[in-house]
Amino acid sequence: MDITTVAKLAGVSRATVSRYLNDGYVSDEKRRAIARVIKETGYIPSRQAKILRTGKTNLIGVIIPKINSASVSRMVAGLSSVFNESQYQMLLANTDNRENKEIDYLRVFTEKDRVDGIILVGTILTPEHERALKNLRIPLIVLGQAFDGFSCVYHDDYHAVREITSHILNRGTKPAYIGVTELDIAAGQSRHTGFLDACAEKNLEVPKKAQMESDFSVDAAYLACERLLDVYPEVDTIVCASDSIAFGAITCLREFGRSVPEDVQVTGVGDSDLSKVITPSLTTIHHHYKTSGMEAAKMLIGAMDKEDTIVRDIRMGYELLLRNSTR
Amino acid sequence: MDITTVAKLAGVSRATVSRYLNDGYVSDEKRRAIARVIKETGYIPSRQAKILRTGKTNLIGVIIPKINSASVSRMVAGLSSVFNESQYQMLLANTDNRENKEIDYLRVFTEKDRVDGIILVGTILTPEHERALKNLRIPLIVLGQAFDGFSCVYHDDYHAVREITSHILNRGTKPAYIGVTELDIAAGQSRHTGFLDACAEKNLEVPKKAQMESDFSVDAAYLACERLLDVYPEVDTIVCASDSIAFGAITCLREFGRSVPEDVQVTGVGDSDLSKVITPSLTTIHHHYKTSGMEAAKMLIGAMDKEDTIVRDIRMGYELLLRNSTR
Repeated sequence: MDITTVAKLAGVSRATVSRYLNDGYVSDEKRRAIARVIKETGYIPSRQAKILRTGKTNLIGVIIPKINSASVSRMVAGLSSVFNESQYQMLLANTDNRENKEIDYLRVFTEKDRVDGIILVGTILTPEHERALKNLRIPLIVLGQAFDGFSCVYHDDYHAVREITSHILNRGTKPAYIGVTELDIAAGQSRHTGFLDACAEKNLEVPKKAQMESDFSVDAAYLACERLLDVYPEVDTIVCASDSIAFGAITCLREFGRSVPEDVQVTGVGDSDLSKVITPSLTTIHHHYKTSGMEAAKMLIGAMDKEDTIVRDIRMGYELLLRNSTR
Repeated sequence: MDITTVAKLAGVSRATVSRYLNDGYVSDEKRRAIARVIKETGYIPSRQAKILRTGKTNLIGVIIPKINSASVSRMVAGLSSVFNESQYQMLLANTDNRENKEIDYLRVFTEKDRVDGIILVGTILTPEHERALKNLRIPLIVLGQAFDGFSCVYHDDYHAVREITSHILNRGTKPAYIGVTELDIAAGQSRHTGFLDACAEKNLEVPKKAQMESDFSVDAAYLACERLLDVYPEVDTIVCASDSIAFGAITCLREFGRSVPEDVQVTGVGDSDLSKVITPSLTTIHHHYKTSGMEAAKMLIGAMDKEDTIVRDIRMGYELLLRNSTR
């Protein structure tokens, strides 16, 4: 099946089919005839011609840390909405939170003709990332992390967690924290520092043993909370670095006979769909993930069109959502 | 930055760098020197040489209906584990449940040299899909749907929902159903038919108005349940086509003052992480999504290596998980 056969079956010239495939002028009648043949034969036109003509692939590479994540999926929804409108298609690369795979995928995407631009939903950015990013020949935007010297869109994790902590410490004096690795500047370090600074402001000391490291899974968070109850049973407030961590903590507290929020208050970050559904509903932070995805997509399009190549970073605001898991 | 510069900086020949990049023999000392230069300079070696040598891209295209889904993410985890071991990398294409985008992405992936094989996590398979699949020049496996004439790995949705329904109808006589479009054979039609056949077996009539169509979102399911309570207030059992639909139904029932499971029993499909965490914990079906992903990956590798090109379909078993949302 090729363009010549399509032309023959549709009763039009090869040049007309080519114009049709490249969005050039074709009369309505011929357009219908070609569309019918393509539909009936299942012909998949090669986009090579278009790529040769425009020098563009119309593909965007998007590197994400995991796929089953409410925050990542909202960022991707934002990216989609802008890229779809501009006729770009996205290819996603899932690294399963292994930052060295990000470098591998940068390689895959930057190979000749694979994509026109890259969005990196960042987690842990190493000096190796910096070197790889500096050597890129195509535009890249970092989403979800601040990264000096590169265009990025990120969330105000520090102030968000500082504010939620300040608020709930009006009704708790034994705060604890369950977070993720500090190598992740946004979700790890910034949220943890926001928590500690809010505690310091209230003159509350938080012993080291009351600061647990988990990952984003419900199961790991359950185990972290179990250890916490063991070493720091007097805890009355647990600030968690994500909604999924809060889900694990709430499940654990329930099984150990502690009521939420009466005995222990719990907060998350993310405002996932399920934060409203669980009992008690979760006090959390709404980050504007979808909007940040849209912003990043617009920045990338500007950079690819060479209309706007000035490096900048955008820090997004947030909203505090007070629900029933806090007093 | 190119291979000649790397060779010069490492103090080795260009041919040695080439052997290093193509996994040929290089002495330990030279290997360390080259690795150091690559690390320090951030050089991203072109894989073109390898592709030319082997005629392979070592890339797999994976078309998925959405990214924020417990079932899809488990299938992808299974695919990853097998493909990683075999040195394949995956590019994901997210269609947001629009089946015509699947055809678009088949086109993107089948273009010259883009990927070696394709996994299609199927939802709605149209005659257009069949034509496009028949015209493919590279191997493809359908995952999550049975599709006659093509190799596929799918789940036994019919018997799973039939069994869960039979079980809970021992303690309910006014069953209702909240499902998804019947165009989706696996999640739509098979689950719905399983429900209806189990009801018929118990001589229970289910009025049309007690069979709601939703989508997989918690919000749509909430609205479907609200309509259901309006037109069929006597309902005492709601079988849902997915866990996320069940979450929406449970939230709605709670807000309308109906206790789960005392007044109304609810079941899901999927055994998502959150099905254990919500209150009450959800009676549901465990499908072997991760294993099915592994099976599909192995089938695809067999087909790409031309060792095993016989078309076959694999139907996976399931497990019934009785928890607290049913009596």
